[in-house]
Amino acid sequence: MKSDSSGRHYGDESPITAFATVPGNSALTLIRCSGKGSIEIISSVFSSELEKAQGNTIVHGWIVNNKNTSADKIDEVLISVFRSPKSYTGEDSADICCHGGLSAGKAVMDVLKNAGFFEALPGEYTFRAFMNGKIDLTKSESVMELVSAKTETGRRHAVMRLCGSLQNEINEIKKTLVQVLAGAEIYLDYSDDEVSADEDEAAGKLPDINQAFEALERLKKLSASWQLERVYQQGVTLVIAGCPNAGKSSLFNALLKEDRSIVTEIPGTTRDWIEAWVSMEGIPVRLIDTAGLRECGDSVEKIGIDRSLKLLNEADIVLYLLDGALEKIKSEDRDFIEKYAASNRHIFILNKADIACAPLDLPACVTPVCVSAKTGEGLEELYAAVNSAITRQTSSQNGETLTASVGTERQKNLVDESCRALEEALSLAQKEEALDLIAPLLRDSVNLLGEITGEVSTADILEEMFSRFCVGK
Amino acid sequence: MKSDSSGRHYGDESPITAFATVPGNSALTLIRCSGKGSIEIISSVFSSELEKAQGNTIVHGWIVNNKNTSADKIDEVLISVFRSPKSYTGEDSADICCHGGLSAGKAVMDVLKNAGFFEALPGEYTFRAFMNGKIDLTKSESVMELVSAKTETGRRHAVMRLCGSLQNEINEIKKTLVQVLAGAEIYLDYSDDEVSADEDEAAGKLPDINQAFEALERLKKLSASWQLERVYQQGVTLVIAGCPNAGKSSLFNALLKEDRSIVTEIPGTTRDWIEAWVSMEGIPVRLIDTAGLRECGDSVEKIGIDRSLKLLNEADIVLYLLDGALEKIKSEDRDFIEKYAASNRHIFILNKADIACAPLDLPACVTPVCVSAKTGEGLEELYAAVNSAITRQTSSQNGETLTASVGTERQKNLVDESCRALEEALSLAQKEEALDLIAPLLRDSVNLLGEITGEVSTADILEEMFSRFCVGK
Repeated sequence: MKSDSSGRHYGDESPITAFATVPGNSALTLIRCSGKGSIEIISSVFSSELEKAQGNTIVHGWIVNNKNTSADKIDEVLISVFRSPKSYTGEDSADICCHGGLSAGKAVMDVLKNAGFFEALPGEYTFRAFMNGKIDLTKSESVMELVSAKTETGRRHAVMRLCGSLQNEINEIKKTLVQVLAGAEIYLDYSDDEVSADEDEAAGKLPDINQAFEALERLKKLSASWQLERVYQQGVTLVIAGCPNAGKSSLFNALLKEDRSIVTEIPGTTRDWIEAWVSMEGIPVRLIDTAGLRECGDSVEKIGIDRSLKLLNEADIVLYLLDGALEKIKSEDRDFIEKYAASNRHIFILNKADIACAPLDLPACVTPVCVSAKTGEGLEELYAAVNSAITRQTSSQNGETLTASVGTERQKNLVDESCRALEEALSLAQKEEALDLIAPLLRDSVNLLGEITGEVSTADILEEMFSRFCVGK
Repeated sequence: MKSDSSGRHYGDESPITAFATVPGNSALTLIRCSGKGSIEIISSVFSSELEKAQGNTIVHGWIVNNKNTSADKIDEVLISVFRSPKSYTGEDSADICCHGGLSAGKAVMDVLKNAGFFEALPGEYTFRAFMNGKIDLTKSESVMELVSAKTETGRRHAVMRLCGSLQNEINEIKKTLVQVLAGAEIYLDYSDDEVSADEDEAAGKLPDINQAFEALERLKKLSASWQLERVYQQGVTLVIAGCPNAGKSSLFNALLKEDRSIVTEIPGTTRDWIEAWVSMEGIPVRLIDTAGLRECGDSVEKIGIDRSLKLLNEADIVLYLLDGALEKIKSEDRDFIEKYAASNRHIFILNKADIACAPLDLPACVTPVCVSAKTGEGLEELYAAVNSAITRQTSSQNGETLTASVGTERQKNLVDESCRALEEALSLAQKEEALDLIAPLLRDSVNLLGEITGEVSTADILEEMFSRFCVGK
């Protein structure tokens, strides 16, 4: 049986394989295998006894091209055996730890495919874990969040959801709504008997509207959490602007130097600005230095002004740098300050704090952050200012530690839809509309929450979701 | 105890850790730990019971910052436990399988270092494996060869040595020489008693010179094997040259398309030629297309001729492309053919085989390979021609399959030194010089072979050798 991934779909139990680590200049490469017969297939190209290996044990041996002739040894490996249901996917699985580099892993992979493994589809391991009841959808998604986390804070938030924080919150809210709904449905069942509402209320059967309002509040908090979560995941764009000689490049380099967490990428000479990803207070920041552009109008060279304005308009945060060593501020700077002093996405910085005080005529409408790009003085204050500008923009409560937050746009949208259905139900309830109009809305609200955790999901939605994962996950 | 790698040396038993895979956009990241107390230290930052885990078993749990509060979960991991001496290093070891991406592995690594692990030195795992008698030096080196292998053939040769082919060959040769040496030393012991040579020979005690000559032949074969091994490891440079419109770029692209094994790297616009790594018959080939350069003299633009000539001179192989669609060959082509027809590093190619025969006036001194870069016709023949040009250059016996070959310059040099000592010993023996002059040379020859496998090695040499490995290996 040859490998042929075309035509395969999520949802079968075929033996699948994929690289779980990046093949490259490393000591080891990890290949994952899972699915029906996977241990038997590996056994057919493995020098040691594998079929009798117990779950959670490790077997040493050689991957071979032909088990009957010892001639064609491919690589010396360790195989971790996992037995259903105690594995990531819930199926029989094995992780093959080969030598690193480009050749060994590729050669082992070729042997596996020839032996009967199919290339895993993106996210297929986690898809199977979900289908086999190992994890719910919020945990599935948190696995991808964790792998993509750009900063320590991003990792921490993903781990929270991997531990079930979102799943628990959703389940609690849902439980409340189900109780309300159950009450409503009992009422509907009895309504034919013309029991008066008063009697029902006395019997405790009428839906407890207050509980539903509490649930609504919790859903709204979850929805609002996405603004900041998105920032942690996708990052913000921060543009350094200011007149020539204000020290833009020095500040850029100072911020890069301070950076302790993300791999930086500085594109080549094809662009006329420089950028890099840095981490500021756990937020991934795309830092752009416009030093190559002419933002101030006195330059003969007008090229770049348009591009510069575009960057400034698209930025989440603009760091506008003033030269602290000047006695009087420039007219361009004054214009800019007057225009944007009230903006919550502009931060004004007085540079060269090591050698100078502020210019005497600084407009009173701004309180700039004083820094020295040269000595690093004031950078912590700058980080704090950036952080608070971001939280202002995301209207998140400062200092409030959320116990649960949503981690993906999918989750956020479902929370919103559930919210809307619940709000409509509550609005009808307050207008004392008929319960048979209200109950279906409550049911919608509950089902939408079920979609978040995956209790209620269609195959289409699942395929669409998991296909955005990386292969091997 | 904080991690501090400065001042550490090869040869202690400290608990060490390193990434064994490339952190990046992948499902998993593998971190290796080994050394005294390593399992106990991991246990102090791990949520599950680990200290009682048996060797070759896998434990699931969370890496935590503080074991007493469950609050600070870092990552959900699988830990493979290995107990001394059944591990790669021979020590107690553990592989921690974390989530992939940039953040999770880094966060786990930080926790490990805070808990007491030191960053492993380059090659320190394999160094420990060697010191603990798990593998000899030839196998140690083959591990690095395997990781660096650029092609399938490179991998296969490294695996041969990992299986012990070189170790066995060296040990057999050494055994022979030790027998000869033992004979010589017995003779020396007895010589005081003035036993006659005739009597000794009759008693079978005189060194068997024929055996030593056989050993010398085997050493010479090993030494010669390096020429081709080096090609498999380091690759060759292959430059495509020829007049404009001969189809250089088409051939370059055709060869790239045919390539089935190596990652290609095409640098940007900073150079005026294009290059890529491809695999031809298992040989890693740096393929250079000089299409951007003017090799033919009729262009007004002379820039690039010098660079082109430099590339042509430095190339291991030059593919000179002739336009098969021309009726008569160009004078520049004729000059080039006449100059290099006898060269064994020039291959002449007649392109456009799909539409044309050869020009009528092709000099009889060359038999070009006919290809069509367009249809791919003749490319197999071209690969064979490249392969035979390389083997001609490396003076390796075509078709001969060596059972053992050297895999590093270090091994090659030691084989050569051992050879020289043995040759000198044999030359003295043939001149019937005194045995007490010959025996020390034989001893040198044996000791030099011992250095190859590591039986005889100084700490300096070992450190120097292993420090060239990658970290994590």
